[in-house]
Amino acid sequence: MHAEKGRLYGVSLGPGDPGLVTLNALRVLEEADSVWFPATPGQGGGRSSIALDILRSCGIDERKCRGIELSMSSDRSHAEQAYARSWLLMQEELLEQKSVAVVTVGDAGMYSTVTPILEHAAAAGRPYRIVAGVPAFLAAGAAAGLPLAAHAERLTILARVGSVDEIDRVLDREKGTVVVMKLSTVRDQLVPWLEKRRPDFFYAEKIGMPGEFITSRVEELCARTIPYFSLLVCSRYGRVASSVEGKL
Amino acid sequence: MHAEKGRLYGVSLGPGDPGLVTLNALRVLEEADSVWFPATPGQGGGRSSIALDILRSCGIDERKCRGIELSMSSDRSHAEQAYARSWLLMQEELLEQKSVAVVTVGDAGMYSTVTPILEHAAAAGRPYRIVAGVPAFLAAGAAAGLPLAAHAERLTILARVGSVDEIDRVLDREKGTVVVMKLSTVRDQLVPWLEKRRPDFFYAEKIGMPGEFITSRVEELCARTIPYFSLLVCSRYGRVASSVEGKL
Repeated sequence: MHAEKGRLYGVSLGPGDPGLVTLNALRVLEEADSVWFPATPGQGGGRSSIALDILRSCGIDERKCRGIELSMSSDRSHAEQAYARSWLLMQEELLEQKSVAVVTVGDAGMYSTVTPILEHAAAAGRPYRIVAGVPAFLAAGAAAGLPLAAHAERLTILARVGSVDEIDRVLDREKGTVVVMKLSTVRDQLVPWLEKRRPDFFYAEKIGMPGEFITSRVEELCARTIPYFSLLVCSRYGRVASSVEGKL
Repeated sequence: MHAEKGRLYGVSLGPGDPGLVTLNALRVLEEADSVWFPATPGQGGGRSSIALDILRSCGIDERKCRGIELSMSSDRSHAEQAYARSWLLMQEELLEQKSVAVVTVGDAGMYSTVTPILEHAAAAGRPYRIVAGVPAFLAAGAAAGLPLAAHAERLTILARVGSVDEIDRVLDREKGTVVVMKLSTVRDQLVPWLEKRRPDFFYAEKIGMPGEFITSRVEELCARTIPYFSLLVCSRYGRVASSVEGKL
């Protein structure tokens, strides 16, 4: 896939490891006239962005990269304003026949920061293309050395659950593997629940990023803060494989 | 990620478009001493392999590529024998300190042809690494121009369902998006079921491969044979986006 003039692209970067960027994504990012990335304002006035870290590692010219500043606040109106402002600027670029890429950590189709921009584009009748990528839960399975589903097994993905009861209900009801993404909403309930329910599980945090951590031992979770980029996999394959290189 | 001597790699190729191969996968495939791919024996004595097509498109030296011949028969014993034979040969290569890659279409963690080889490796105490990739359902969502899940929405993935009743039960029980992969098992039930249930859906076939086809209209499915590489997405986003480039 090549970046064409006057075109909008929603580009998946994968979960953090620049090596999980696809060839299509790299080509579009190299050729695009501008690359928009989600960023979080920092406490000292700076900002942090996993997406920008990945873009830098891939050698994308930083002069064409522009941040969409999204605070981590649960009040969505700030984020909605940031998206609306960024979309207006992107739209100007598109009218000037520039090629515009907007990137997301993970895949653009699952719980993605590009969705609101693509919704603005759709509402404005502006065509776009999506470049698919590697989602965090599959990268976590790979890091653990475990398949997530085989044959006719079922895989259920939950995100931002309100309570561990929701995980309980799905585990009771659905056979197969249950993945819970963006675990920080149940931060305080997680360890007591794992101790009580005792599912076969693994927990993964910051997969492919600095600080990557993966475990299938409850004891190792007691002292952890459970960040936004974290996930839990409950399945019959739920133990980190002892034969994974580097985890022996 | 680099291919190291004496190491086994389970490498995800993505669903078919060589542009969906990741940078890590490409590097491992280029550096590996041998690359094993799943192939299906053809009727005329030849064989077909989507995986080999992708390897060729990525410029991987075909002289180091070796097929694992898997018939599409539902009798698993032939496949098990083919895996066991291939694993013995791979093990010899690993003992000779060669780097060995075994590839899968899609992602190595979901319904993958590499799983049996990695199970052989685990049983033999032989370390391996998995290179994550793009699964077909996310590439299908990208091709349709649709998000599959946002915010706290649930995503359930079924594969090789025995009957459409199973899809019905999950749709009734779980909110959010339901993906059904490897639809050919319900080939004859699909159109009558869609006509009766009338979910918001899209159907995708051979995503990223020659013959890619995608629709959200039941009428367009009546005459189709529904091949192995096909999937159905039922969700509130289930209509192919009119603003997707090329689908206007």
